[in-house]
Amino acid sequence: MRFLSETSSVGVREQLFTLHEIPGVLWTPEAAVGARPLVLMGHGGGQHKKAPDILARARRFVTELGFAVVALDVPAHGDRPKVEEYDRVATENQARIEAGEELAVLIAGFQALVARQTVPEWQATLDAVQQLDHVGVGPVGYWGVSLGCGLGVPFVAAEPRVRAAVLGLGGALASAEAAAAITVPVEFLVQWDDERVPRVQSMALFDALASTEKTLHANPGKHGEIPAFELDSTLRFFSRHLR
Amino acid sequence: MRFLSETSSVGVREQLFTLHEIPGVLWTPEAAVGARPLVLMGHGGGQHKKAPDILARARRFVTELGFAVVALDVPAHGDRPKVEEYDRVATENQARIEAGEELAVLIAGFQALVARQTVPEWQATLDAVQQLDHVGVGPVGYWGVSLGCGLGVPFVAAEPRVRAAVLGLGGALASAEAAAAITVPVEFLVQWDDERVPRVQSMALFDALASTEKTLHANPGKHGEIPAFELDSTLRFFSRHLR
Repeated sequence: MRFLSETSSVGVREQLFTLHEIPGVLWTPEAAVGARPLVLMGHGGGQHKKAPDILARARRFVTELGFAVVALDVPAHGDRPKVEEYDRVATENQARIEAGEELAVLIAGFQALVARQTVPEWQATLDAVQQLDHVGVGPVGYWGVSLGCGLGVPFVAAEPRVRAAVLGLGGALASAEAAAAITVPVEFLVQWDDERVPRVQSMALFDALASTEKTLHANPGKHGEIPAFELDSTLRFFSRHLR
Repeated sequence: MRFLSETSSVGVREQLFTLHEIPGVLWTPEAAVGARPLVLMGHGGGQHKKAPDILARARRFVTELGFAVVALDVPAHGDRPKVEEYDRVATENQARIEAGEELAVLIAGFQALVARQTVPEWQATLDAVQQLDHVGVGPVGYWGVSLGCGLGVPFVAAEPRVRAAVLGLGGALASAEAAAAITVPVEFLVQWDDERVPRVQSMALFDALASTEKTLHANPGKHGEIPAFELDSTLRFFSRHLR
């Protein structure tokens, strides 16, 4: 793990780093000493580790809950190089969409492909970050919607350190099997008028989670229109399960 | 409106009353003076105005939010006399269930019948209670699940004083038309394994609400097993919309 830069702003310390060539960012409370809960965040498709919705949530986890938050660029996103295989699949998918294939099925297949790479990357990130004095070994949470859900479901299923997860805007097509291995509390976000994920697919993914405590929050609006009050709910959810 | 008794306990003043022969109960903060938000609560089938889940919620609305709360016995429930017509329908329904008719359809029909009586009763209750010095004319909310949803949907649709409602454990069969007239914010509770209300019916009722702000919370468990943390959410919802 190599630190590239460090800045501080309004109570939040931000450290950019690379870990085995993967660019990441770690946010902690400015004066943090000792172990604390850690939330790993997975960004959306076409976005990156410092996308506005990631930043806004990370700031609140740090300032209001005292947590550490870490995010990485997903392969072929943010500061990471293109991946030839992904480009090839994307081009193929474009042709398949034009030929009438279902968008949700193609998205799911793509996310399953990327997850094979991100699960071990994210696990290595937990290993590294939890060795830092100002993060330490505390409870771990995961937050990710859309692509962050498609990659998050197999990650949460594989990683026993994760004790609670916020997921959503994703369907069961790629990840029903992994979802059945998840037993930790989950808050699951659905956009009622999601133009990318069919409602029935969202419901099927929620249904597949083996967690005894899982709660689905559905709100009107399109894929990108999660209402602001859901962030308040996310804070309370993580506060309840990670503190 | 005739007051029958008054007691106080742990910060909550409880007044039993009758209004045109209907038995009701009003809870307010012990030292309440002046206008405040008022929540009308509708109890479940076979229950009554002081059922444990009504009492527990009312206490928290009063002590944590400073609200007034009012509840009435539904016809043929609690301290109210039997209603011959309802008994007849119940007997008929028993025979129809045995003949293989769908439970949810029969429940919906019964609730629509009862709502024709309760909507005007509840409106008269708001009129009377808001004339009291320690309640006054403030924003009004409604809380009701199961039978309280079946009766609540037509009430909220008909009553412009209601500015926010918590509903749930109910389906669209009886009340889709009334739901389409509801435009205030709604928090809607679904039990994922509800043995009485088919999931698809719950979803259809949520879908039918015309509210631009509506949020569906689904949790695992049977009809009567709403998790405790949903009450915290209800408090925040009413706090956001009625204060």
